[in-house]
Amino acid sequence: MQAAYFEGNRTLRVGEGAAVEPGPGQVRIEVAFCGICGTDLHLYHGAMAQRLTLPHVMGHEMTGRIAALGAGVTGWKAGDRVTVRPLDPCGMCPACAAGHSHICHNLKFIGIDTPGALQGSWTVPAHTLHRLPEGLTMREGALVEPVAVACHDVRMSGLARGEQAVVIGGGPIGILVALVARARGGRVLMAEVNPFRLQLARELGIEAANPLETDIVALVNERTGGAGADVVFEVSGSGAGADLMTKLPRTRGRIVVVAIYGEAPKVDLFRFFWRELKLAGARVYEAEDFEQALELAAAGELPLEKLITDVVPLGRVEEALQRMEGGGACMKILVDCAGEIQ
Amino acid sequence: MQAAYFEGNRTLRVGEGAAVEPGPGQVRIEVAFCGICGTDLHLYHGAMAQRLTLPHVMGHEMTGRIAALGAGVTGWKAGDRVTVRPLDPCGMCPACAAGHSHICHNLKFIGIDTPGALQGSWTVPAHTLHRLPEGLTMREGALVEPVAVACHDVRMSGLARGEQAVVIGGGPIGILVALVARARGGRVLMAEVNPFRLQLARELGIEAANPLETDIVALVNERTGGAGADVVFEVSGSGAGADLMTKLPRTRGRIVVVAIYGEAPKVDLFRFFWRELKLAGARVYEAEDFEQALELAAAGELPLEKLITDVVPLGRVEEALQRMEGGGACMKILVDCAGEIQ
Repeated sequence: MQAAYFEGNRTLRVGEGAAVEPGPGQVRIEVAFCGICGTDLHLYHGAMAQRLTLPHVMGHEMTGRIAALGAGVTGWKAGDRVTVRPLDPCGMCPACAAGHSHICHNLKFIGIDTPGALQGSWTVPAHTLHRLPEGLTMREGALVEPVAVACHDVRMSGLARGEQAVVIGGGPIGILVALVARARGGRVLMAEVNPFRLQLARELGIEAANPLETDIVALVNERTGGAGADVVFEVSGSGAGADLMTKLPRTRGRIVVVAIYGEAPKVDLFRFFWRELKLAGARVYEAEDFEQALELAAAGELPLEKLITDVVPLGRVEEALQRMEGGGACMKILVDCAGEIQ
Repeated sequence: MQAAYFEGNRTLRVGEGAAVEPGPGQVRIEVAFCGICGTDLHLYHGAMAQRLTLPHVMGHEMTGRIAALGAGVTGWKAGDRVTVRPLDPCGMCPACAAGHSHICHNLKFIGIDTPGALQGSWTVPAHTLHRLPEGLTMREGALVEPVAVACHDVRMSGLARGEQAVVIGGGPIGILVALVARARGGRVLMAEVNPFRLQLARELGIEAANPLETDIVALVNERTGGAGADVVFEVSGSGAGADLMTKLPRTRGRIVVVAIYGEAPKVDLFRFFWRELKLAGARVYEAEDFEQALELAAAGELPLEKLITDVVPLGRVEEALQRMEGGGACMKILVDCAGEIQ
């Protein structure tokens, strides 16, 4: 089988690898498609280097078919169409004990702390599997992992039908948060500066404005009779986003921090006091978020095909990473790991 | 009657004033005691100057007896012992409409936006009154307003019996948050740098440590089997406090921002993401917080007398403000506005 090996120093090599036979409790999957995540781009840029064993196979947004079952695996058979929830918690730490195993203190993120899915054959714990519903294509299924992120974010926000949500940042996760929030009955406004992303959001029917051109605070106040937004999702990871997020919510409005901040931004804590704002961090997903994501995707409520900018073969992963740099005219790029198109 | 008039430019003058006869829906109170709040000190230093009409009478933590009733006031009679919840909301704005009238968009804070209680006679809306229970002295009753702040903060934190709370900052509000959290069954650790405040906290049976000498994060992790605190109250308003607050909570732990920040500090939003932390701002109080404060105080569950550093006559208010500057060896100073001591 072929695999894409990250060798550090912004170098990716595609070469022959050996399939790993599944041990007890594991399955081997023939990978169909694997999406490239912003996190993969960060790894390529040298982030989290201490967590990687080089050469490292990246990738964790995937679909495939089960090829082989390890000892003790029940409920699955060869040929089953699956996606993977790429979390391997320790089961022992205080977070696991408290029922928050998705943010386990010793969490192994499969595809970062262990080899990922940018290869023809991938061996993972069976407890990570989710079945692809009938009618969900292998291409769409490769977006279920980021959809599950969005489902988690929206669930953590407590968004109720009819509430006004603002999504700051319209990359793949921001767009999916907006789509899931809309599917849950929210009124959604997106703030984004990239013209390609603005255009795509509008094509998907999401109201979107550029904060460099439009006074987002005034717009939200106008939309809400001066009250402010019920929910704000900060997905930009920028200082400007951290600044905007506290200006938008109503009294006791909720902010969900989805973005990963490389350094601590200034945050207007006075505004939290003044309006009794609430903020919650949201990270990855729990099993129920994956199930909700599969349900929403299978019900055709999310225009996932429209988010796929391109599908490339394994040999062009590095080129795809370079296209993603800077945001550009790019949403989600899938890698065809098996040649299968359906 | 005598009143303490703030004339701007750090100048306070005590002089004769005229009692204001109560209009419809108002009562006139003969003030017994009035505590000096950190906010009063900020006013004295020139903060919120645009909200004041000079000369301004400060003060909003008080007890007194009703002296006269305006037209249409029912349920009260002359001689009733009362304290005042000094909030006058507009009743019309989106916050009031949403049931958050305590943080009304157009809130008048009585004692800032209108004259306060540092005078012999004070006229206020009857809807602000709370009855002092039997057994609560006039001196103790003057602390009910800051106790209500603490009750609000603890209620907003969702603190459950047996949970580990950390209070960052041990001034009057921090101490009261610690005492109320303990009364609600929380395990409490206070972080404070001022030796007088540390000593007082310890005398009140609160575990207290100096973050300049003790690794508070290690201590909390030791206390909680590596999990982290359930609840953190940030009451210091310092950059160091904003830094410490995100290091302490467990996964999905809660931070309540009580402090008023003059400028936006750096806040580790990555930690919010990583541990799915929650943060809530908490401002003043609602009616139920005042009722809880009166109940706790009357039940003798709070050592309020021990928080009273001194009681001074109206003529010494300016001296008292100067003693409060810098924190020093000072907790709560009451002003005897009527000569009544009980």
